[in-house]
Amino acid sequence: MTEKKILMIVCDGLSDRPVKQFDNKTPLQAARKPAMDAIARHGMSGTMDVIAPGVIPGSDTAHLALFGYDPFKVYTGRGPIEAAGAGIPLDPGDVAFRCNFATVDGSMNVIDRRAGRIREGTAQLSKALSGMKIGDVTVQFKEGSEHRAALVLKGPGLDWHVSDVDPHKEGNTLQARALVPGAEKTARVLNEFVSKSNEILRSHEVNVDRAKMGLPPANIVLPRGAGGIRDLETLTARYGLKCAAVAGVTLVKGICRMVGMDVPNVKGATGGLDTDYRAKGEAALGLLSSYDFVFVNVKAGDIAGHDGDFKGKVQVIENIDTMLGLVLKEIHEGVVIALTADHSTPVSVKDHSADPVPLAISGGGVRVDGVREFDEISASLGALGRIRGMELMPILLGTADRAKKFGA
Amino acid sequence: MTEKKILMIVCDGLSDRPVKQFDNKTPLQAARKPAMDAIARHGMSGTMDVIAPGVIPGSDTAHLALFGYDPFKVYTGRGPIEAAGAGIPLDPGDVAFRCNFATVDGSMNVIDRRAGRIREGTAQLSKALSGMKIGDVTVQFKEGSEHRAALVLKGPGLDWHVSDVDPHKEGNTLQARALVPGAEKTARVLNEFVSKSNEILRSHEVNVDRAKMGLPPANIVLPRGAGGIRDLETLTARYGLKCAAVAGVTLVKGICRMVGMDVPNVKGATGGLDTDYRAKGEAALGLLSSYDFVFVNVKAGDIAGHDGDFKGKVQVIENIDTMLGLVLKEIHEGVVIALTADHSTPVSVKDHSADPVPLAISGGGVRVDGVREFDEISASLGALGRIRGMELMPILLGTADRAKKFGA
Repeated sequence: MTEKKILMIVCDGLSDRPVKQFDNKTPLQAARKPAMDAIARHGMSGTMDVIAPGVIPGSDTAHLALFGYDPFKVYTGRGPIEAAGAGIPLDPGDVAFRCNFATVDGSMNVIDRRAGRIREGTAQLSKALSGMKIGDVTVQFKEGSEHRAALVLKGPGLDWHVSDVDPHKEGNTLQARALVPGAEKTARVLNEFVSKSNEILRSHEVNVDRAKMGLPPANIVLPRGAGGIRDLETLTARYGLKCAAVAGVTLVKGICRMVGMDVPNVKGATGGLDTDYRAKGEAALGLLSSYDFVFVNVKAGDIAGHDGDFKGKVQVIENIDTMLGLVLKEIHEGVVIALTADHSTPVSVKDHSADPVPLAISGGGVRVDGVREFDEISASLGALGRIRGMELMPILLGTADRAKKFGA
Repeated sequence: MTEKKILMIVCDGLSDRPVKQFDNKTPLQAARKPAMDAIARHGMSGTMDVIAPGVIPGSDTAHLALFGYDPFKVYTGRGPIEAAGAGIPLDPGDVAFRCNFATVDGSMNVIDRRAGRIREGTAQLSKALSGMKIGDVTVQFKEGSEHRAALVLKGPGLDWHVSDVDPHKEGNTLQARALVPGAEKTARVLNEFVSKSNEILRSHEVNVDRAKMGLPPANIVLPRGAGGIRDLETLTARYGLKCAAVAGVTLVKGICRMVGMDVPNVKGATGGLDTDYRAKGEAALGLLSSYDFVFVNVKAGDIAGHDGDFKGKVQVIENIDTMLGLVLKEIHEGVVIALTADHSTPVSVKDHSADPVPLAISGGGVRVDGVREFDEISASLGALGRIRGMELMPILLGTADRAKKFGA
């Protein structure tokens, strides 16, 4: 059997929930999208929990799962998730922490682990810390919600097996230690960062203002939940696939590179609402001639979702559909096409949600079910049933006659 | 609630993909099969990934999963299954191999890995090897179909982590080696067996006769697929089921024996296209009177799939259906019937594929959905949804009111 090529098209945050004032339709149900519907009509549809039911996927964990990696295994500790959440891209070798802004007294006793649940000024405090150099290690630091923040250490010879600095209760043991031989450097750098955070923050104007208002100063950072990202076996090593990606967003590009894809720069593919859809489609077609697996991420739907803009999202869908129509015209049916989203970003939520995403697969050896439209409900009635994101790659490999036999 | 009996009918390789020149139908969709459709119509249908999505099942791993065992935990190479199929009972600690009779020249170069696909005389050759002693290790050896055979080493201190002797292509590296510390003895004994097999076989009268006929001599045995048996808890121990199987193929028979089924010989059940369907059906009915769980494997669909013969596969389906019709006539609805396949063997692929298989369950306490036909697409729209092979036995036990309560 001839092995087929695979084209995976992920429309970031595309899927949604029904919206009352728009006839209880989702943006996908409201949009005119003949190309998407054609993929559903000539193929097999289903619903996909990208991570697991009830888990809200981040774009990073979602893409890891879509490429067949178990995000629960790839991610180590809470730090990397906090970092990803804060938008600090992680490379293998980096060590990431979840942090609190906290209050210590002059003898470094922790008075308040959350600095009075500080809400204002954490962006300025973070800016004062980020970019710091500790020997050959660079610090990246970014605030999260309230007193929370993310810390990433980037440099040679780091190891995430270090204990928390955060004592988890009021007290004064603010000392990280190596949990395995080889992690001593990381513990030392981390302790120096904590001590420097106190030096820098205690006199920061945000804290001067807080003192005036009688609020506890956010005069130290307490890191915990150290984690790194494991060096991933590439898709080429795993499945023998030559892979390339068309993506605009840094985070997604980063993950594509981590799993061994070539990620050429596509002029006009910005990852924004102004992205050049046509350029993306043409780039994908070009790559299909020399790669086995081509991945395309279109970010715009997610942005419209975050903006809570129903009509904007419908427009994005119709724009993507036009691009898809051009791509479909140039592709013979030997190519296996998967059309899906990495997560839902409902306009009513203005953020990612745990709702599963629709999926349609056409081409190759696919069985054709009776589904005629590509949307959240139509897809859920298809022959694929309800699958997990991690199952998508194996299913595509099977449909493309690239799967391996287990047993005899 | 009275416990019901269970009849599991596995049509080997039955499911398929749509074929363009036959109106985009699968053989199941094209065949006239009133009995299969009746099971679907009076029961509940679904789609089943026998191992996991995107994994192409072997017949061995598939049947383990269908009987409720995790093939990833149980499976240790092909050897033990070949031995079970050949009727050599394995004890924990034994090491089993799948072997070929092959042809080597005077310098031990492999000339033909299958000794001209020898069919005649392998029983005599096997007898000449079986019972051999190598130190404290006893050799058991038994022919299989054509050039195939099973080797079991029995003795203290053996370990199945050894490499294949079979070079898998014509060549002369006929040397097993230990893959882990502790397997050196096994590698040594195995190499001595191979060398002795050459000494004994090269002058054997079967080979003298073959030489006269100008056929390549079966003058060496090439073992591969070393494995031991993890002590499998039988279905009887696990579920309290008295079990029997009707199967023609050695491999499947072997697995049935491994999980504790009685496997009576059924006259005419050959495992080939010429199998006596009626005899199989009657045997199953007979066994149902004294066993709780009766398993039937019909191999013919897989063969037609491997041959790429659409019309032949349709004919096989209609033949199986006639047999099923006779069985259904004699069975009261208290019996839980499961109709499925162990994997797909699409005529367009001519080999196993990763496509899931259809499943229909009727009888007992089953809920009845609206599915009216037994085929890949109709089944996928049924109330069972998409399940894994390992979930089938628990579901059948539940439907037959034989499941255990977990909790209070």
